[in-house]
Amino acid sequence: MSAGKFSFVVEPFTEDCCGRLSWRFLGNHLLRCASIHAGQHGFGYDDMQEQHHAWVLSRIVVEMNTIPTTGEAYNVETWVKSAYRQFTDRLYAITDNAEGIYGYAFSTWALIDVTTRQPMNLADLPNGGFKEAIIARDIPLKAPSRIRLKQPQVVRQQNVQYSDLDINGHVNSVRYIEMMLDLLPEACHQPVRHLEVAYSAEAHFGDTLTFRVDTSSEATEQPTHLIEVLKDGETVVARGVITFKA
Amino acid sequence: MSAGKFSFVVEPFTEDCCGRLSWRFLGNHLLRCASIHAGQHGFGYDDMQEQHHAWVLSRIVVEMNTIPTTGEAYNVETWVKSAYRQFTDRLYAITDNAEGIYGYAFSTWALIDVTTRQPMNLADLPNGGFKEAIIARDIPLKAPSRIRLKQPQVVRQQNVQYSDLDINGHVNSVRYIEMMLDLLPEACHQPVRHLEVAYSAEAHFGDTLTFRVDTSSEATEQPTHLIEVLKDGETVVARGVITFKA
Repeated sequence: MSAGKFSFVVEPFTEDCCGRLSWRFLGNHLLRCASIHAGQHGFGYDDMQEQHHAWVLSRIVVEMNTIPTTGEAYNVETWVKSAYRQFTDRLYAITDNAEGIYGYAFSTWALIDVTTRQPMNLADLPNGGFKEAIIARDIPLKAPSRIRLKQPQVVRQQNVQYSDLDINGHVNSVRYIEMMLDLLPEACHQPVRHLEVAYSAEAHFGDTLTFRVDTSSEATEQPTHLIEVLKDGETVVARGVITFKA
Repeated sequence: MSAGKFSFVVEPFTEDCCGRLSWRFLGNHLLRCASIHAGQHGFGYDDMQEQHHAWVLSRIVVEMNTIPTTGEAYNVETWVKSAYRQFTDRLYAITDNAEGIYGYAFSTWALIDVTTRQPMNLADLPNGGFKEAIIARDIPLKAPSRIRLKQPQVVRQQNVQYSDLDINGHVNSVRYIEMMLDLLPEACHQPVRHLEVAYSAEAHFGDTLTFRVDTSSEATEQPTHLIEVLKDGETVVARGVITFKA
């Protein structure tokens, strides 16, 4: 099995207000490259659907040294690093056309049964749990740890809308990243250095999302923003960590 | 001068909750193809910037017979149909790979001076106002008329956020389409047949947007939704018309 390598250019109208590739498009490309690479190797969305299984994004960490700007070329390289219980860890290197590294990403995907929405144990699958898909190549990015908010304070509530949804009828994973950045005015002038989201439940049309931030971490000079998204006031849907570049 | 023809496939994670190419991506492709086509013919963003001019989208009308779904190929064909005062009309045909037509679009772009933000008269330009760019090919889509709301009622207010903005630091033209669809629950189950937006001012980070809809048009069986977006309660930023397929 080989890593996937997908080449892009930062096209006009895919930048954010600072002129850098927006998280909308960068995040979308990370998900899309995962989907295409899995499909090329027989374990994509369609293959899984035939077996009534589906991949669900459980965790994503992205760390960017530099975010490319208009006209700059970038490549998304992606491969599966490990498979365990219901999870696979899929890694990414975001590279330029020389020897440079824009950044890295670490993602964890769970395989679920589409009818029961319960996790599948990969070891029980006929193909032996994607063992042949695994590539040992590592990246200098720590696996994510649990995100805990010490002093969560409600900062916003909003209802899930049409433009938040994707083909699965739930709020799109990348949309949560945008919603979290929308809480942080720094997003308008500083690039994100480190971004991490843990997804724990789905939100659907009309659900009320409550956003809480941990104010205890805001006091430092280059704060780490901890954000929690609840639906209907109680169920944690996602938790995130965002650090901007100094 | 030749029309531009740009080929796409509806990629995973570019669909809306109905599985059709989302307006976010369709709208983005329309703008992007305009930009690339103009650039290929010497009147793109960079060329205009050298002369301290910029293209600003003033009007867009899109009419879709069918919206392509996951894996389907589509082409965006685009050309300039006319140039007059500060405006050019750019037309689009959205086609499949056989003889089929997904839809058409009509757009009007104004050339402004970036310093004064005032419109330029195309006839005064050294190249004679893009006369050589014009292609006579027409589309079966009426030029837009003025959008008037008879009984406007405020339905929503929201502040402009980071994820609404594009590289120009103002709310992205396509984002207004999403914001308008977000007012209409039909968007979650019916495809849009006709969509029209007239842009009249820019909105920036922190501006409060007020959305008004014309309730007088809501009574008919297949209503035409008329929507108005104001900033800071008075300046009209955009007006839109949306009709869903029966």
